[in-house]
Amino acid sequence: MRMAELSRRTGVPVPTIKYYLREGLLQPGERTSPNQARYDEPHVHRLRMIRALVEVAGLPIAAVRDVLEAAETDLVPHQVLGEVQDRLPPAYPAGEGEAWEAAYDLVVDLIERRGWNADPDCAPGRALTTAIRSLHEMGRADLVGLVEVYADGVEKMAEADVRAVIRGRGMEDVIEGVVMGTVIGDTLISSLRRLAHQHASDEFLRERE
Amino acid sequence: MRMAELSRRTGVPVPTIKYYLREGLLQPGERTSPNQARYDEPHVHRLRMIRALVEVAGLPIAAVRDVLEAAETDLVPHQVLGEVQDRLPPAYPAGEGEAWEAAYDLVVDLIERRGWNADPDCAPGRALTTAIRSLHEMGRADLVGLVEVYADGVEKMAEADVRAVIRGRGMEDVIEGVVMGTVIGDTLISSLRRLAHQHASDEFLRERE
Repeated sequence: MRMAELSRRTGVPVPTIKYYLREGLLQPGERTSPNQARYDEPHVHRLRMIRALVEVAGLPIAAVRDVLEAAETDLVPHQVLGEVQDRLPPAYPAGEGEAWEAAYDLVVDLIERRGWNADPDCAPGRALTTAIRSLHEMGRADLVGLVEVYADGVEKMAEADVRAVIRGRGMEDVIEGVVMGTVIGDTLISSLRRLAHQHASDEFLRERE
Repeated sequence: MRMAELSRRTGVPVPTIKYYLREGLLQPGERTSPNQARYDEPHVHRLRMIRALVEVAGLPIAAVRDVLEAAETDLVPHQVLGEVQDRLPPAYPAGEGEAWEAAYDLVVDLIERRGWNADPDCAPGRALTTAIRSLHEMGRADLVGLVEVYADGVEKMAEADVRAVIRGRGMEDVIEGVVMGTVIGDTLISSLRRLAHQHASDEFLRERE
């Protein structure tokens, strides 16, 4: 198909497609004349994936490229998972000082108590440590208790995620599932939690009346 | 305290504090001489909150200002919740066409089945619809089934969130809890889910061996 058709199929405007081509996010089409190229189904699929990462997850283009590159490496899905986790913004540098150490100890303790085979020094471990440190520094230790409720919830979610993703038809599907499950899954969960907040907050108002 | 002390207490560099002052994110200190000002505890607290929104949630400065403004309005916590949800990036415009309508119907159905008093046409409703549409367009309807698992999980999380936040000491605390619970809560949940993914993925590898 021509670029106009590619645009129609994916809902991505032609100038945006040209931008993705220049940035190397989308592989070039097969050249059919000096100023025309032909695109096919893998282009449609790839563009929809880029669109999802930009529009659903709100990722900047550099992060989209990084994440998609993780899916193109010759790694097994478990390693791709680690790569995607490492590449997703924002970056969380390791901290230092008492407040950091205290938050880090909580993370290590949580991982141990739950028997998780997970690394406190990876990107998600640093993200969790940074978030807990912030709550402590703001005097909101009361909210840190929620971490246990969240951990209960994510255990079930993560099990279901892995089960759903490994059912993929072939390795390419599984790897795509790892990427989309991680990134789009965040948006599904955060938007559902906000809808549930509306309900829970409304329930609380009614109880008080 | 002087600005140097404010910087030391919060870990925010002096040039960054000056930037936040110029951008109106931080209220000016009390002027003590033509080129000196005095800052106090509310400045420390506010700076830690800004830092959390930038470093933990990765929000751009314009979004930090928007979200903090929601907390300053004369609204009750339930309304602040809606304001914060509306102001958090990325923005999700309402879509159109068959794929959008089909995803929207799923969201309306989910809200009804669960008896949630929640609005499918608000920002989180549009986010959820956008995410589901993307999965469908990518031929990943298999992953849409995860929405039910996530909805089970977030119901418990949202109840615990509201209970934790309303225990605040006074209205200011409750409003701050709404903001931090929404924004920092996302990071706590996404990082915990990634750690749980590492574990679940590793467990799956062991089972196959």
